Amino acid sequence: MGKIVTLLTDFGLKDTYVGQMKGVISGVCEDANIIDLTHDIEAQNIHSAGYLLVDAMGVFNDTSVHIAVVDPGVGSKRKEIAVKTEKGILIGPDNGLFTAAIKRYGFEGAVELNKSKYWYGHSNTFHGRDIFASIAGHLLNGVKMEAMGDKLDNIETIQLLEPKIEDEGIEGHVVLIDHFGNLLCDITEDDLHQSIGKLDDKVAVVCGGEMIRGIKRTFSDVWVGEAIVYIGSSMRLEIAVREGSAAKRFEVGLGDRITVKRNTL
Amino acid sequence: MGKIVTLLTDFGLKDTYVGQMKGVISGVCEDANIIDLTHDIEAQNIHSAGYLLVDAMGVFNDTSVHIAVVDPGVGSKRKEIAVKTEKGILIGPDNGLFTAAIKRYGFEGAVELNKSKYWYGHSNTFHGRDIFASIAGHLLNGVKMEAMGDKLDNIETIQLLEPKIEDEGIEGHVVLIDHFGNLLCDITEDDLHQSIGKLDDKVAVVCGGEMIRGIKRTFSDVWVGEAIVYIGSSMRLEIAVREGSAAKRFEVGLGDRITVKRNTL
Amino acid sequence: MGKIVTLLTDFGLKDTYVGQMKGVISGVCEDANIIDLTHDIEAQNIHSAGYLLVDAMGVFNDTSVHIAVVDPGVGSKRKEIAVKTEKGILIGPDNGLFTAAIKRYGFEGAVELNKSKYWYGHSNTFHGRDIFASIAGHLLNGVKMEAMGDKLDNIETIQLLEPKIEDEGIEGHVVLIDHFGNLLCDITEDDLHQSIGKLDDKVAVVCGGEMIRGIKRTFSDVWVGEAIVYIGSSMRLEIAVREGSAAKRFEVGLGDRITVKRNTL
Repeated sequence: MGKIVTLLTDFGLKDTYVGQMKGVISGVCEDANIIDLTHDIEAQNIHSAGYLLVDAMGVFNDTSVHIAVVDPGVGSKRKEIAVKTEKGILIGPDNGLFTAAIKRYGFEGAVELNKSKYWYGHSNTFHGRDIFASIAGHLLNGVKMEAMGDKLDNIETIQLLEPKIEDEGIEGHVVLIDHFGNLLCDITEDDLHQSIGKLDDKVAVVCGGEMIRGIKRTFSDVWVGEAIVYIGSSMRLEIAVREGSAAKRFEVGLGDRITVKRNTL
Repeated sequence: MGKIVTLLTDFGLKDTYVGQMKGVISGVCEDANIIDLTHDIEAQNIHSAGYLLVDAMGVFNDTSVHIAVVDPGVGSKRKEIAVKTEKGILIGPDNGLFTAAIKRYGFEGAVELNKSKYWYGHSNTFHGRDIFASIAGHLLNGVKMEAMGDKLDNIETIQLLEPKIEDEGIEGHVVLIDHFGNLLCDITEDDLHQSIGKLDDKVAVVCGGEMIRGIKRTFSDVWVGEAIVYIGSSMRLEIAVREGSAAKRFEVGLGDRITVKRNTL
Repeated sequence: MGKIVTLLTDFGLKDTYVGQMKGVISGVCEDANIIDLTHDIEAQNIHSAGYLLVDAMGVFNDTSVHIAVVDPGVGSKRKEIAVKTEKGILIGPDNGLFTAAIKRYGFEGAVELNKSKYWYGHSNTFHGRDIFASIAGHLLNGVKMEAMGDKLDNIETIQLLEPKIEDEGIEGHVVLIDHFGNLLCDITEDDLHQSIGKLDDKVAVVCGGEMIRGIKRTFSDVWVGEAIVYIGSSMRLEIAVREGSAAKRFEVGLGDRITVKRNTL
């Protein structure tokens, strides 16, 4: 897979911040393969960033490095960290951004990135370039994470929304809304099998006060303009409108409740 | 030129879908050179996607691989295909997206991508990652297209707008509107030479009810704010407003009619 | 650092123009490492483009090549040029775009790119692809700049805003507004030390009619929603609102005046 480092930030693409990070990475590790996940995180939304990161990590192998920078506290006393998981090493601020990632892929150790000889520079407002990009380059060059900072026994976590899984159904939440207006939930395929059993036409999903009947396979199972519930490419329950926007149709937002139950009528 | 694969989708850049595709490609072919064409296709507009693709293909060589995913029917019975042309191999859904490409660069064979051992995964809603990205990686690694699926004698095509070329003039259409508001037509330089003859100040172009006189060489041939007609970088007739937007000025949209004739006054 | 070429344009990402440039570069130099700085320059704003370029150049080494295309005069008699600086070679139109870059990194020679054997093509409206991308590839391959065109003794420059540095204070300007709404000024850390002395709580900054007291280190030195002045990652004086937009809060735009003085009260 080569020396892969992914980038996920809220920097946008109108400035050169992302380009500067890539310059620093390439300066340290000439043959780094830099892959943008997204730079369009809603400003300082560490919840969305964390979900997007964990869903993308699945396609990369365990030698990959993932930089995530959504960092309202840049320059404050929050630490800069590297975290080892079974899906590679995460680099970013210690502000809870990696909560979903370590929940799914485990916590196999972390360091505070306080050895400045592995940094690029010392600005107080651009750790993405000055610390994280440079550290990623050194990791790809084979420097051990443990050499680049003092060991941490744990990292900051945030309270994530959790689906309530009960025998008669699941109460979950919208955790991501994608470019198409599809609603991605914190309810996974496993959760559904555990609580609901067979994912068939007898399942009822309530979203924004409306009931959608049945869990389908793919868009063409419904008419254009019709709502559909299915297991998406990230193994999450997704709600969409074929060739339309479920976010607009149901007028729901991040954190809104989604209920799934077996329709006994 | 190296192992080039280009990507053209309607996925946008706010999610990690494009990054996931790149992860899969790099996972299969470590030294793939992945080039984004655009991910900003208007949702599910296979006409625009097809024109953008064919115009970009020209700069790549015949060993390049081009993935295009604009796919309202993902998961339906429409096939996943690879298509050989004189400008490399196209990968995507069999929904007509490649109509303009094979018209310009020929149809040299196609397969239905139904050998799942060359896939990455089996989601029903993200063939861009699970099938197309993985297939592209294998093609770049030297696997033959023919090994990855059953032969198809033809692929789906859509009815493209066609300019009417007559002795006294051409009636064509706006097929792309670019970032600057420039209008790109389905009328090519060859069409113009055939019907109109010399491309000089005696040519009249009618756009949105207004007449523009003369075919010019470049923007500086007119004043700032003035309309101009020229042969663009894709060899298409283009209509622009210097340092302005022709789309706004003439209030025309995709598919609107453009007429070119020799002004005999 | 490898064979790095950066791209900075006003082409946007909805068309394939940037992808076509990358295709041409890779066609000439297979192992080019192409890094996007930004393609989101406000249409034809060569001032902003010049500031963004010079601030990004710092992270790249002196063998890098930087293509910048913001070019209202494409196709006119303005020249296409390559310019040597202590931070690598700049390629683009001779319209003043490189004024800030040569002011900071020196002018070490230039050529007019008039040897068409190093070009990709001859369109009159897309020199980014047909000339600049191709030239960049040849430079990365080791062709000398001097071989690709006739020597120029100087290049076009534009009148940049300049801060007025006096003993009692500095009068500067907003020269960039970033994605977060932070205001970047033409006042550097060096300017401040020279005129103001110590950067402490006794410094007063006037922006949009309001006074902000003190130069701080980083965002966490103020409350959420509070304005802050600090030395940014480009060594410029920056004005921000923590977790907000200074551009909106102070209703200032590009070119607006910023005054810094020592508060003697």
